Amino acid sequence: MIKCDICIIGAGPTGLFAVFEAGLLKMRCHVIDALPQVGGQLSEVYPHKPIYDIPGYPEISAQQLVDKLMDQIKPFSPTFTLGERVDSFSRNQEGLFKLTTNEGSVITAKVIVIAAGLGCFEPRKPAIPNLSSFEGKGVIYLIKKPDELKNKHIVIAGGGDSALDWTIHLANISPHVTLVHRGDTFRGTPESAAKVYELAQQNKINLVLKANVVDLHGTAKLEKAEILDHSKNNLFIKADYFIPLFGLSPKLGPISEWGLGIDKNAILVNTVDYSTNISGVYAIGDINTYEGKLKLILCGFHEAALMAQSAFKLVYPDEKLTFKYTTVYGINPL
Amino acid sequence: MIKCDICIIGAGPTGLFAVFEAGLLKMRCHVIDALPQVGGQLSEVYPHKPIYDIPGYPEISAQQLVDKLMDQIKPFSPTFTLGERVDSFSRNQEGLFKLTTNEGSVITAKVIVIAAGLGCFEPRKPAIPNLSSFEGKGVIYLIKKPDELKNKHIVIAGGGDSALDWTIHLANISPHVTLVHRGDTFRGTPESAAKVYELAQQNKINLVLKANVVDLHGTAKLEKAEILDHSKNNLFIKADYFIPLFGLSPKLGPISEWGLGIDKNAILVNTVDYSTNISGVYAIGDINTYEGKLKLILCGFHEAALMAQSAFKLVYPDEKLTFKYTTVYGINPL
Ligand SMILES: Cc1cc2nc3c(=O)[nH]c(=O)nc-3n(C[C@H](O)[C@H](O)[C@H](O)COP(=O)(O)OP(=O)(O)OC[C@H]3O[C@@H](n4cnc5c(N)ncnc54)[C@H](O)[C@@H]3O)c2cc1C
Ligand SMILES: Cc1cc2nc3c(=O)[nH]c(=O)nc-3n(C[C@H](O)[C@H](O)[C@H](O)COP(=O)(O)OP(=O)(O)OC[C@H]3O[C@@H](n4cnc5c(N)ncnc54)[C@H](O)[C@@H]3O)c2cc1C
Repeated sequence: MIKCDICIIGAGPTGLFAVFEAGLLKMRCHVIDALPQVGGQLSEVYPHKPIYDIPGYPEISAQQLVDKLMDQIKPFSPTFTLGERVDSFSRNQEGLFKLTTNEGSVITAKVIVIAAGLGCFEPRKPAIPNLSSFEGKGVIYLIKKPDELKNKHIVIAGGGDSALDWTIHLANISPHVTLVHRGDTFRGTPESAAKVYELAQQNKINLVLKANVVDLHGTAKLEKAEILDHSKNNLFIKADYFIPLFGLSPKLGPISEWGLGIDKNAILVNTVDYSTNISGVYAIGDINTYEGKLKLILCGFHEAALMAQSAFKLVYPDEKLTFKYTTVYGINPL
Repeated sequence: MIKCDICIIGAGPTGLFAVFEAGLLKMRCHVIDALPQVGGQLSEVYPHKPIYDIPGYPEISAQQLVDKLMDQIKPFSPTFTLGERVDSFSRNQEGLFKLTTNEGSVITAKVIVIAAGLGCFEPRKPAIPNLSSFEGKGVIYLIKKPDELKNKHIVIAGGGDSALDWTIHLANISPHVTLVHRGDTFRGTPESAAKVYELAQQNKINLVLKANVVDLHGTAKLEKAEILDHSKNNLFIKADYFIPLFGLSPKLGPISEWGLGIDKNAILVNTVDYSTNISGVYAIGDINTYEGKLKLILCGFHEAALMAQSAFKLVYPDEKLTFKYTTVYGINPL
């Protein structure tokens, strides 16, 4: 069990900077994110794209900003649980929050800061009726251990970089890779697409264009994927694994069931300190809403600063908070 | 007469970033500051000191931040009036604001943004009864043209860097320089202090310690400064110029007379858009106040962004505002 002053849900720019503002006030943070890496939308959606409206940076790439924020919070030694989704929380008799993730990790904290952006990034799932019944039995959305796929029969679906890159990669370790794509051109980079066409010509992969996986078959586990092609033929392809790679999309997810005031997929907050309707729970960044709200990175920074002042009173109820400039008092590592 | 969409009072970090947020929304800004340089407190009070809480900058000197902000707003070609204080504004029949400075400059604008920080930096004046009656007749607080002081009789008062540095500088161009300081040690850098002691020993300046200028004498213009020393002696020193250098301190100044809601030297605003009680007039940065307010640079940035969205409706009443990410739409120079 992990203990901290503030448990931050979401390692996007807002959650990361919240570690800094909390740290200045001697509050120790633990950060949880469902993604395997920090950075939220910036790292997941547009890491290499330039941002122009970070104050003091005429231009900075999204990933560079994330890296700078990680440098900036280092003195406060935050801890992280990555690749796990916070599913629920409760409050014990002493008023401590207990958060639980989908993997069963438990974190206790005096304060919860929800910096969950647009929600959890979750795989976009194709509309195949019995898809979910094969999850864990051959259907996977994230390839964590490629080695387990060695020499297996693999059907990949998708037309973006992720589908192309995994096809190329897996073709090295298995002769039984099929890529199914509903179009006949790829959205991914031309180099990757060219490589995939080449592998298909060399019969190193099986490429099925203008087609969709429409059904899955198997008893204890996945055995076959059924494909409908543009001539309305049904093909049955042997499959130990079916890997639909249609990108990730954010979903509010479990947050909607926590009893928080919600308006249009965002959490209602009081702009005095970005507190929610549950005492001790704050919401900052893209996840919150209030009159005038802008879903901008720089707004999340401001919200983090005001939140920290308020959280301090909960973490250190007997201490008086004096407002100090970093220039004058420096930062005191935790 | 200068025309613009938004006239920004104050060229501190908040006023500068407001140019950026306004520019993104195609609004052209003119910025006025009473100081001769941009940057507000950062350039005037602590240019070489590091700031640690600018998001994305683990450390940046105050002046560097100002330079970066100037780079960032360059595409929007703001114009500046520096070294002039906005004294008043009125509104004409078409609803345009007309602002007037202490030097008589006139600016018309559709919107006023007050980003005046702690107010105008004004020289701290010593308590000498008839000081003001000699202003412009030998009493000066800012040395704009040192050459005019060549070979003049000059009395400087003060114990900080400014007093020391000007004493050293003026000793080069006049043999009649007197430095009066109420203490016997200096607050300025030891090197400057050592140099002043050395000049005094060489009789190149007249150094009067533990003493104060208590009165000024002259008819049409200043002729003598009267000094009271620690032995209660009154010394009369010939003086064409008396230059009290006791630093600058911010004063709310004219702003308090503009009919704005004021609480403890700050302007009351609505946090939805940081508007004041006067329609078309906004207040952002250190100058405003609301529940939860923090006088931090990063908060001024957020306030500037929300202000700009609201100001757009006044500047372009017939256009629909669509929220755009800089990453996706870039910035379109004005
Ligand atoms: C293409 C694009 C361009 C953009 N350009 C700009 C721009 O130029 N300027 C600008 O200011 N903004 C821009 N934005 C918006 C900006 O990215 C967001 O405002 C910012 O990412 C919000 O940060 P955040 O920390 O609030 O949330 P996010 O970055 O969304 O991070 C939230 C994190 O919380 C995690 N999470 C959610 N729920 C849970 C849970 N239950 N358990 C565990 N983890 C959870 C998510 O996995 C995610 O990583 C752009 C966005 C996009 C998509
Ligand atoms: C020593 C020190 C250390 C600090 N450290 C930090 C820190 O680490 N982090 C942080 O976030 N903040 C820090 N601050 C605070 C920070 O400097 C202020 O929050 C910031 O300067 C506010 O910016 P602003 O643009 O609102 O106002 P200011 O920087 O005060 O600029 C306002 C400008 O308006 C001008 N003005 C006022 N009235 C008029 C008028 N009538 N006509 C024309 N011009 C006018 C003034 O001349 C001034 O230049 C520090 C401040 C000091 C003094």
